[in-house]
Amino acid sequence: MNFLKQAITLISIVLFFISSHSQNGHDLWLQNKNPKTVHVVTAKQSPTIDIVKNELLKGWQGTEGSTLTLTIKKDRSLHRDGFKITPTTIQANTDLGILYGVYELLRRQQTGIYINENINNPSYDRRVLNHWDNPNGSIERGYAGKSLFWRYGKDSLAVTESDRKLWQEYARINASVGINGSVLNNVNASPMMLTAGYLERVKAIAEVLRPYGVKTYISIKFSSPSLIGGLSTSDPLDADVIKWWNNKIKEIYKLIPDFGGFLVKASSEGQPGPQDYGRTHADGANMLADALKPYNGIVMWRAFVYSANDEDRAKQAYNEFVPLDGQFRDNVIIQVKNGPIDFQPREPFSPLFGALKKTAIMPELQITQEYLGHSIHLAYLAPMWKEFLDSDTYQEGKGSTVAKSTDGSLFNQKISAISGVANTGLDTNWTGHTFAQSNWYTFGRLAWNHELSSEQIADEWVKLTFSPFDLANSQTKPDFSKNDWSNNFLQPVKQMMLDSHEAVVDYMMPFGLHHIFSANAHYGPGPWYGPERVRKDWTSLYYHKADSLGIGFDRTTTGSNAIIQYEEPLRSQLSNLETCPENLLLWFHHVPWDYKMKNGKTLWDNLAYRYDAGVKKVREFQKIWDMAKPYVDSERFYEVQSKLRNQNRNAQVWKDACLLYFQEFSNMPIPYDLERPMHDLEDLKISTMKRPLDYK
Amino acid sequence: MNFLKQAITLISIVLFFISSHSQNGHDLWLQNKNPKTVHVVTAKQSPTIDIVKNELLKGWQGTEGSTLTLTIKKDRSLHRDGFKITPTTIQANTDLGILYGVYELLRRQQTGIYINENINNPSYDRRVLNHWDNPNGSIERGYAGKSLFWRYGKDSLAVTESDRKLWQEYARINASVGINGSVLNNVNASPMMLTAGYLERVKAIAEVLRPYGVKTYISIKFSSPSLIGGLSTSDPLDADVIKWWNNKIKEIYKLIPDFGGFLVKASSEGQPGPQDYGRTHADGANMLADALKPYNGIVMWRAFVYSANDEDRAKQAYNEFVPLDGQFRDNVIIQVKNGPIDFQPREPFSPLFGALKKTAIMPELQITQEYLGHSIHLAYLAPMWKEFLDSDTYQEGKGSTVAKSTDGSLFNQKISAISGVANTGLDTNWTGHTFAQSNWYTFGRLAWNHELSSEQIADEWVKLTFSPFDLANSQTKPDFSKNDWSNNFLQPVKQMMLDSHEAVVDYMMPFGLHHIFSANAHYGPGPWYGPERVRKDWTSLYYHKADSLGIGFDRTTTGSNAIIQYEEPLRSQLSNLETCPENLLLWFHHVPWDYKMKNGKTLWDNLAYRYDAGVKKVREFQKIWDMAKPYVDSERFYEVQSKLRNQNRNAQVWKDACLLYFQEFSNMPIPYDLERPMHDLEDLKISTMKRPLDYK
Repeated sequence: MNFLKQAITLISIVLFFISSHSQNGHDLWLQNKNPKTVHVVTAKQSPTIDIVKNELLKGWQGTEGSTLTLTIKKDRSLHRDGFKITPTTIQANTDLGILYGVYELLRRQQTGIYINENINNPSYDRRVLNHWDNPNGSIERGYAGKSLFWRYGKDSLAVTESDRKLWQEYARINASVGINGSVLNNVNASPMMLTAGYLERVKAIAEVLRPYGVKTYISIKFSSPSLIGGLSTSDPLDADVIKWWNNKIKEIYKLIPDFGGFLVKASSEGQPGPQDYGRTHADGANMLADALKPYNGIVMWRAFVYSANDEDRAKQAYNEFVPLDGQFRDNVIIQVKNGPIDFQPREPFSPLFGALKKTAIMPELQITQEYLGHSIHLAYLAPMWKEFLDSDTYQEGKGSTVAKSTDGSLFNQKISAISGVANTGLDTNWTGHTFAQSNWYTFGRLAWNHELSSEQIADEWVKLTFSPFDLANSQTKPDFSKNDWSNNFLQPVKQMMLDSHEAVVDYMMPFGLHHIFSANAHYGPGPWYGPERVRKDWTSLYYHKADSLGIGFDRTTTGSNAIIQYEEPLRSQLSNLETCPENLLLWFHHVPWDYKMKNGKTLWDNLAYRYDAGVKKVREFQKIWDMAKPYVDSERFYEVQSKLRNQNRNAQVWKDACLLYFQEFSNMPIPYDLERPMHDLEDLKISTMKRPLDYK
Repeated sequence: MNFLKQAITLISIVLFFISSHSQNGHDLWLQNKNPKTVHVVTAKQSPTIDIVKNELLKGWQGTEGSTLTLTIKKDRSLHRDGFKITPTTIQANTDLGILYGVYELLRRQQTGIYINENINNPSYDRRVLNHWDNPNGSIERGYAGKSLFWRYGKDSLAVTESDRKLWQEYARINASVGINGSVLNNVNASPMMLTAGYLERVKAIAEVLRPYGVKTYISIKFSSPSLIGGLSTSDPLDADVIKWWNNKIKEIYKLIPDFGGFLVKASSEGQPGPQDYGRTHADGANMLADALKPYNGIVMWRAFVYSANDEDRAKQAYNEFVPLDGQFRDNVIIQVKNGPIDFQPREPFSPLFGALKKTAIMPELQITQEYLGHSIHLAYLAPMWKEFLDSDTYQEGKGSTVAKSTDGSLFNQKISAISGVANTGLDTNWTGHTFAQSNWYTFGRLAWNHELSSEQIADEWVKLTFSPFDLANSQTKPDFSKNDWSNNFLQPVKQMMLDSHEAVVDYMMPFGLHHIFSANAHYGPGPWYGPERVRKDWTSLYYHKADSLGIGFDRTTTGSNAIIQYEEPLRSQLSNLETCPENLLLWFHHVPWDYKMKNGKTLWDNLAYRYDAGVKKVREFQKIWDMAKPYVDSERFYEVQSKLRNQNRNAQVWKDACLLYFQEFSNMPIPYDLERPMHDLEDLKISTMKRPLDYK
C-alpha cells in the first residue's frame, strides 16, 4: 500500500511563463510552449517514466488541471512499443510505449490534429538513423557541422557533461518522432571503432540514449580481425575469425547489454568483404549473425554493391542478392537503398524490394541531401519517400507495395526495419537548413507510420516548428487570428514544402535523368563529367548517354535489360516508351530528341520547359517565404531567405549547364519564350566543380 | 593639256570576288562587299584623293559601270569640309570634303538610306576623340585592350610597319564617320609626352592620320615647365614659363605643321594648374593659346573641376567658369562634360552650356562605358547623347538647345568642337564589345550631324555591321528575303539598341540616382560605399543620401540650390517636385519613400519595379539576340550572346544590391509580384568591389 501510494505520483504543475527565446532552431519541433497544469497518474517508476513526466510538465497543452492516466499492461492489439491514447489516457505494453504515446498526445495538442484511430502501432520495429560519422569527427555527406558523437584531437574520447547534454537532446528528438536506433559511425567504417576506447564511448552514448528507447548500433569493417585482431585473414569461415568476432561481440555486450547490432558495408565500393575470401554475402552476414544471436543482436547487411564491369550498375545488387535469397539467418536484414543507383533526385524503386521473399529486407533512405542540394536547397523529402514506399512491386500481385514488402505484412520475417542516413551535425539547428529538420522529422514519422501522408506530416511539422503560439521574436507582431496564420503562412509554406522535391528534380534531373553531377561533391551540375581516369560508372556520361540521336539509358531489352528485374505488369509498362511514366522516361529509355511527349511537345522542348519550371518554382518559393516574414522569428526567416536565394542561383546554374550541354547534342534551340541561360557553358564547366555561385 | 589628261584619271575597276572572311569584328562597319565597277573622274591628285579612289574601288555598290565625278571648288554654301552629293557627283571645297562625300555615298549605297538634303555640312568643326592612353600603353577607363599608340617596354617608341598599318585603319575608320581629330594621350597627362622621343612618335602617327584628315592633339601636364623643363615654377604668367611653352610649341609644329593643339586638365582631381600659382583658368589657358596662335593651334581647356569642399560638386564647375566668361582667347574652347557630375548613366545637362556666352564651349561625351558596364554591357549611347544635345538650356530663350549653344549657331564663336572619350584598344574588334562599335560610329555621326536621330544611326550601323550581303560565315544559311532579314533581325536588333541605354539606367540608377558604384572600378553597385578615409564626394552616400525619410540629393533652395544655375523656366520646373521630370527626380530632390509618383505608386515601389524592369529588359535582349542567330556569323553571335549573359547576371546584382541596401532605409517590402533578390546584401558588399559574377 505504502509502495503503491508512493508510486502513484500526483504531480501538480503550476502554469509558468517560459520567456520566449531566440529561435536559433536548436529546439526544432520541440519548442517550449506555455504549458498548462496536468495531474499525471502512473503506477510505474523508471528513467523512461521520469522523462514522460518531465515532457508532460513542460508541454501539456490540454485542459488546465486535467488528469492523465498512464497504464502499462499487456495488450495483444499493441505491438512492441505501440500505444492507445485518449485525451486523458495512455496505455502501452512498455514504458517506451507510454513515452511515444505522450509525444503523440502532445503533438496532437499543439497541432490540433486528431487521428481517429485509438491503437497506434509502429510500421517498422527498428527505426534507425545511420550516421556516416567518422572517428575524427567529420561526416561523410554531412552538411551541418561535425559529428555529434566523435571528435578530432587529444581527449577525443573523453566524455564531457556537454557531450551528455547534447546526446540527451538528440535522444529526445528521436524519441519524439519514434526513432529507436542509431548507428553511430560511418558505413565506410574504421576498424578503430571496435577498439576499447571507442567502445567505452559507445557505452557512454548508449547510457544516455537508453531511457529514450534509442538503441545503439555500430558499423563495422569486415576485415577488422586482420586489421586490429592480429589475424592473418578475415575469412568468415575461418575458425579464428569466428572466434575473434565472438569474443568482440561478447566484449561489446558486456559494456552495452542492449546493443543493437552491426551495420555492414562489405564488398562494396572498395570496402573489404566476404568476396575477398571467395565467400558469399550470406557467408559473411551469417557468421556475424550467429555471433550476435545469443544477445538478440542483428546484422543490417547493405546491398549497395556494384563493380566497374560491363553490367548496368542498376542491375548488380539484384544479380548478387537474389540468388542468395533464403540463405540468410533470421537476424540478418538486407539494407537496400530506395533506388537501384544511389539516392538520386528521382529513381524507380530498387527491384530487390519484393524480390527477396525469404530474406528480411529494409529500406535505406537518405535524409542528408547528398544529391539534393546539401543543406542549401529546400527539399522536403516526404513526397519522394512516399512515392517509393507506395510503389507497387507486383511481386505478390497487385498491391505489393514496397512498404508492405518490408514491414512484415507481405512476407514472414522476424525483424522489420527502416533506416535513414542522418542529416545531423553540431550546427546549432542540427541540420544546417531549418527546413531540413522536416526530413529528420519525416523519417521518424514515416518509420512509425508509413501511411501518413506527406501533407499531414508537413502540416504537423510547420505547426510545431513555426508555432504561432511563440511569436515573441518575430520582427513585426501582426494582430493575426488563427485563420490569418493559416491562410498566409501555414498553407503557402506547406505547399512550398510539398512542391519542393519536385522542383529540385525539375532543375536538376527531370524525366528520369540521374547522376549527372560534377564529380564527387554531388552538388553542382556536371553532365559533361567524364575524365578518362575515372571509372565509367562514376561519370555522368555513363548515365545520360546523350548523343546526336537522343538521351537516356536504354534499360529495355534492346539495352541493359534492367527491366527484367521488375515484375509484370510493371515490367511491360516500363519497357514500353508509350506507357513508361514520363518522370522515369530517361531512366529506362534512350529517347530521340524530337520524340513527341504526351503534351505534344518534343522531348527537347520538354526538357527545356522543365528545367525552366524548376527555376521558376524556386523563385515562387522565395515569394512565399518573403511573404511569410511577419510570421517567423527573424533568425530563421533570414537564414531561410538567404538559402532560397542561393538555391535560386544554383537552380539557374543547373538549368543553364544542362540545357547548354545537352543542346550540343540536340542541336535544337531553347524555345524562345523561355528565359535564356545567364551563364556560359565553358564557365560553368570550370565553376561547378565547386559549389557554384556559393559565396559562403 | 598633257597635265590635264594625266590628271583626269579614268579608273576602270573590274568586279572581283572578295572572299568572305571571318567576322572577328576588326572591319567594324567597313566590311568589304563585292564592289561594282565605277569610273572615277577627278582633276585632283593628292594622298587624300588616292584614298578616295581606293575606297570607291573597294566599296562601290552603285550601278555597275557608273561614272562618278569628283569636283573640288569653292562653294559658299559648303562649310569647311562639307560636301554636296548626288548618285553620280561629289563636290566639296577640299579634298577631305570629297573623302567625306565618298564615305557618305558608299554608306547610302549599302544602307539604302537617302537623305533629302544635297548640302552636307558638319555640325562641329572639330570632331575629336580623346584617348585616355598612358605612355606605358595602359588606358584609363579602357576596356578593349592596350593603347593603339603607346606601349610598354624596350623600343616602345620605335615605329613599326604594323603600327602604321593599325594607325591607318584607325584613321580610315574615323574619317568614314567624320571624326577629324585625336588627342593621343590621357588627360591625366604625363609630362614625358612633351619630350623629344614621344613627340617623334606623335609625328609618325600624324603622318599616317593626315591624309584621312585626322589632326593630332596631345594632352599636356600644366606643370611640365618645372617637371621636365628645369624651371622652378610653372606659373603661367612667369616669363620663363611662357618662353618654355613657346619653344616647346615651336618644336612641335616643326615636327607636325598641322598639329591641332592641346587638351588640358588643370586644377582638377589633383592635376596641377594655374590655381597652384594663384592664377585663374583663363590665365593658364590664354598663355598656352597665345603660344599656339601663330600656328592656328587651339587649347581645349577642361571644366571638369571640383574640390572636396562643402559646395555641391554639381555646382562647382559653373561657379568657377562663369565669372571668367569673356576672359578667354578665341582659340581657347572650354571642354565640358555633358552632365555636371561625371558621365553618369543619366545626368541633366551641365548648366555651363548656354551660360558661357562669350566663351567657346564644347561638349565632352564619353564613348568608353566607364559608368555603363564597361565593354560587357550592351548600351547604345545615341539616345543618351541626343537627350543631352536636344536639352533646352533656355539661355537665349526657348530652343536654346545644348547643340545650338555649342555648334556656333547661337553664340558667336571662332571654333566649334565636340569630343568623345574613345573606347578603342588593341582588341581585334577595337572596342571589346561588338555593339560598343556603334558608339564610336555614333559619336562620329552626331559630331558631323547632331540632327541625326538615334533610330537612323542605329539603322545605318546595323545594316553596315551585320550586312546581309556578307553572310558566308553565318552558321545557318536561311533562305531569307530582305524582308525576312529586316523583320527578324534589323528591326528587333535596332529596337534592342534603342532600349539598351535606358535598360542600364533602370537596373543601375533610375530616377536620377547617380554615382552609387562600388569604389573606383565604376562597374558594380556600391550604394553602401563610403569608407571613412575617402573624401565624401567620392562616396555613394554623398550622392544618394538615403535615410529613413527618403532618398535623393536635394538641389533645390532647401538644399544645395544647384537649380539656381539653370535658366527659367527650366529652373522652376526642376525645383518643383511635381514638375521635375521623374527620370531626374532624385538628382534634384530628396523624396520621401512613400511619395506618390505619377503612376500612383510610391517612390519605393517605383524603384523596385524599375530595377526589376531593367533586369527584364536584359533578358528580353537575350531573346532577341538568340533569335538573331541565323543572321549573324558565329564569332560575333557567341561573343554578344556571352556578354548579354554576363550583363543579365550583373543587372541582377545591381537590382539586388540597390533594393536590398535601400530597403534598409525604406523599411518597405519589395512588391511581392516581383521576383525576389537572388543574392544576399552582405555577399554583394564583398563581391561587387570587383566585377561581380564575372568569371573571365
